[in-house]
Amino acid sequence: MTQLVAVLGVGVVPTDAPVVTADDLGINRGDGVFDAARVVSDADGVRVDLLDEHLARFGRSHEKMAMAAPDLDAWRALVDEAVAAWDVPGEAVLKLIATRGLEHAPAAPGASFLTITASDTAPCPPLRVITLGTGRASDAFADAPWLLGGVKSLSYGVNVAVAREARRRGVDDVLFTTTDGYCLEGPRSGLLALVDGVYVTTPVEGTGILDSVTIGALRARLAEQGITMVDRLLTPDGLVGAEAAWLISAGRGVCDIVALDGKPLRTDAEASALLRGLAGF
Amino acid sequence: MTQLVAVLGVGVVPTDAPVVTADDLGINRGDGVFDAARVVSDADGVRVDLLDEHLARFGRSHEKMAMAAPDLDAWRALVDEAVAAWDVPGEAVLKLIATRGLEHAPAAPGASFLTITASDTAPCPPLRVITLGTGRASDAFADAPWLLGGVKSLSYGVNVAVAREARRRGVDDVLFTTTDGYCLEGPRSGLLALVDGVYVTTPVEGTGILDSVTIGALRARLAEQGITMVDRLLTPDGLVGAEAAWLISAGRGVCDIVALDGKPLRTDAEASALLRGLAGF
Repeated sequence: MTQLVAVLGVGVVPTDAPVVTADDLGINRGDGVFDAARVVSDADGVRVDLLDEHLARFGRSHEKMAMAAPDLDAWRALVDEAVAAWDVPGEAVLKLIATRGLEHAPAAPGASFLTITASDTAPCPPLRVITLGTGRASDAFADAPWLLGGVKSLSYGVNVAVAREARRRGVDDVLFTTTDGYCLEGPRSGLLALVDGVYVTTPVEGTGILDSVTIGALRARLAEQGITMVDRLLTPDGLVGAEAAWLISAGRGVCDIVALDGKPLRTDAEASALLRGLAGF
Repeated sequence: MTQLVAVLGVGVVPTDAPVVTADDLGINRGDGVFDAARVVSDADGVRVDLLDEHLARFGRSHEKMAMAAPDLDAWRALVDEAVAAWDVPGEAVLKLIATRGLEHAPAAPGASFLTITASDTAPCPPLRVITLGTGRASDAFADAPWLLGGVKSLSYGVNVAVAREARRRGVDDVLFTTTDGYCLEGPRSGLLALVDGVYVTTPVEGTGILDSVTIGALRARLAEQGITMVDRLLTPDGLVGAEAAWLISAGRGVCDIVALDGKPLRTDAEASALLRGLAGF
């Protein structure tokens, strides 16, 4: 592991230094939020891609969890300090983590820290994907804010469990599906498809999916080229019939889905190249 | 806060000593398990109620999460050491926490520690409760182990969020309900009701609820008196029509539900006293 750890209000600390106390709600209850962004190293130096957008979503996650608003200037300064200290070439991921506080001392602050971790520099491999049900309908989150839809919370145990299930079944990734038969998102990525010449992604409203920063950036950059991205629920069959489909994230970029539940999917090299270029991968 | 912290393989440490590193999957992903038991202080000294049963469930949670089996003898020794060091009179709660490991160094062990925390010694107050939907049907977990039904995992963010929603609505607690109209459990307690003279609790199988250690103990002790407890799904209306209903946990014991969504519930002082006596509260 090549990793850097920095604590808000402290700065860079040794990677193996414990930073979370036993009473912290983050470790006790998964009660906190995070965000993850790509760290880009190139001829211009090291920087964080779409940092403003990731910080904004980090703030929205705080708000949806009724946590005190984060001091984004302090977080930005900590990111600057960490990036200045990061000297590992190649791809890396920045992760920001903030917990609600301590369980039995509500006035005490919780852990607030970031990590930068070196990641695989290879282009994203083609993905064989299975669908796994969430047990919920596509509108389950519409009037149920307590289900924490759209929050990048620390309670990601199910997202890790589905990745285990994928490995167990010998495939690469998972697409969450609803009881009413729609595709949502991957456990750590958003869904985009090209259907009848139109870029289609999952609606955020009511579905509980995360508002993908990378898909948001693609939406804006496609719009600059006069290409529209629409929000529409797709079925697994619809995805199998699409011209192409991708799982997209800040960490891995734009990954072709080449099979869904064992059925082959078409790919579109031109569209994939366009999206990778626009996303900077 | 009056709290004791002890780390597996280390022993008792200062309460404010950080014990979890930044790369630990427990803090990064809520990827780990816990269990909680009552610490009893009386004339015989300090001991943990139903420790064997809680350790057994802790082991089952590891298994359902595909984590390596815990060394329960080592945990038991750590509990003994912590209890011997605990000198605060009154009620307390023991919590065991174990994470899967580190995210980027899979061979490294994750955090494994316990806390003992002083808790309210008053008898459990009567509870005004609201129902909040899980967005899932009562059989949603039957064929979906990746949803982590029945696991006391660290991804408890929703359980904390519903408690916030209850406070916002001016009530004391929450009863989770399903899309097909059944009652499940509280966010930190199990459900028991007395219906037509029969003790009824929520079935564990398929519903994803936690197998309550305290309700399990009550089931065995009622059986010794020739009283049967049955597993059956109840509707909110069924609960409102019951002779009595309780939310039950190791920490708080047997709490009367006195209102559900604003409708008054009957209570049964004799049954409550029987249950409290059998549970040792």
